[in-house]
Amino acid sequence: MSPTARSASAQRRAAVPAAVERLSLNTATVRAGLLETIDACAAAGVGWIAPWREQFAEVPVAVAARAIGAAGLRVSSLCRGGFFPAATAPERAASIAENLRALDEAAELAADVLVLVCGGVVGRDLAGSRQMVEDGIAAILPAAAARGVKLGIEPLHPMFAADRSVIVTLDQANDMARRLASPWVGAVVDVYHVWWDPQVEEAIARTGEKTLAFHVNDWVVPLVDVLNGRGVMGDGVIDLRRLRRAVDDVGYRGPIEVEIFNESVRAMGLRPALELIVERYLQTVI
Amino acid sequence: MSPTARSASAQRRAAVPAAVERLSLNTATVRAGLLETIDACAAAGVGWIAPWREQFAEVPVAVAARAIGAAGLRVSSLCRGGFFPAATAPERAASIAENLRALDEAAELAADVLVLVCGGVVGRDLAGSRQMVEDGIAAILPAAAARGVKLGIEPLHPMFAADRSVIVTLDQANDMARRLASPWVGAVVDVYHVWWDPQVEEAIARTGEKTLAFHVNDWVVPLVDVLNGRGVMGDGVIDLRRLRRAVDDVGYRGPIEVEIFNESVRAMGLRPALELIVERYLQTVI
Repeated sequence: MSPTARSASAQRRAAVPAAVERLSLNTATVRAGLLETIDACAAAGVGWIAPWREQFAEVPVAVAARAIGAAGLRVSSLCRGGFFPAATAPERAASIAENLRALDEAAELAADVLVLVCGGVVGRDLAGSRQMVEDGIAAILPAAAARGVKLGIEPLHPMFAADRSVIVTLDQANDMARRLASPWVGAVVDVYHVWWDPQVEEAIARTGEKTLAFHVNDWVVPLVDVLNGRGVMGDGVIDLRRLRRAVDDVGYRGPIEVEIFNESVRAMGLRPALELIVERYLQTVI
Repeated sequence: MSPTARSASAQRRAAVPAAVERLSLNTATVRAGLLETIDACAAAGVGWIAPWREQFAEVPVAVAARAIGAAGLRVSSLCRGGFFPAATAPERAASIAENLRALDEAAELAADVLVLVCGGVVGRDLAGSRQMVEDGIAAILPAAAARGVKLGIEPLHPMFAADRSVIVTLDQANDMARRLASPWVGAVVDVYHVWWDPQVEEAIARTGEKTLAFHVNDWVVPLVDVLNGRGVMGDGVIDLRRLRRAVDDVGYRGPIEVEIFNESVRAMGLRPALELIVERYLQTVI
């Protein structure tokens, strides 16, 4: 081995832990209990984790918070708040109450961000539904500020506009965050949701310091399932490095969260899935 | 019945034929031979038809053109040209040649528009693939002008960006049409593809006289299949009248084409499907 090659190899070995430390595992990527997932992340050198609220039925949030801290992990984001639009005022109030509970949990976990999947269209009224989202976020913003948790508006892919999120572009999330004019609200950039956008790089540049999270996965062809058809990084068509550089360029230095909904990844088992994720993250993202 | 009610009813009866005359049936909506479909459209008072090139394997284009003319129908659009991006120059040249054959067929049918489904991403290079689309359209524009057929850039829903169309918003189609700077190129507005866009009304206004076609159907929840999950107008969440008024407002007076890809509609049989389509078109679009 030439000295140059040895040096490059040594540099790579030295670089790997730091890069992996920036990785976050969204727990829906794997099929395992939360405590087991926490242990596996720590063992793999992954520095962050993103749990789902549903998991606290099995592992109370206080227990989860202690286990995450004891493992030396931090919570990149909590999934999820949102789903603000509803046909009636009592339903919208119930959604606000649920979001406040999510904020309490996020605070207990010392999560950086509560991810908002904003909710779909009500009564064929897109504009009205979008206003309900903005009103809902405005209603929970004081609680977010009081708890020190940022609200991350996640634009979802337009194929979810009807049933999951009327917020479908990063520009739209960014515009809404700016109208809400609070340091406690910003946008979540998930490559699966935004990669197609002709304006995505300009939109990331505009989002700037309001970029609260960066999620990676891939878009595979053919798309077998809109919800559970996401690919592992490198298996699809997204130029991941281009988007990672775009968030780098606005100064985002936070965790890079892997969020893949795919039954075949879940079927791999926790540790093999995590190994593959770390490998692909190093090959295609960093 | 009051004189006012009788008058409204009489007006509606008088109005129906004119409105239906503006309707076009995209033949992929039904499962029937082309000649049979032509007859059914004429019998229903539908004024236009949009065939697919694949159908000319069974019914030669000259025969189709004569049958359409004899039935008193016109061709709103021919499906389809496009699919310009490809990894190699010979493949791209083959695509151009195929598009020229499509233009010949469109001219023989006296079609207003050749619909362009522009093609998906090549080699993870969205920007490069988009440039290949623009180059491809530029290459066939002289032939389109010579044949008197307009090229309709159809932005497809972003869920098709990987495999069918890197052109995913009306703004993008419109920008490309304007750069190409020819009266022979414009954009196709299909509600299924554009309804989610926060800028859709502004985009239609910008498209203006370059609005070459208007396609209707609906977005149903849950989406069972990205390709064949379109709904009949009124079965989904799209505010169809809002979009129809937007194309009205830019002076579009051409055919309104019903394009539904849905096995349950095809299974209804030709005439019952056409009856339902006419009914829903009158109820939800006009």
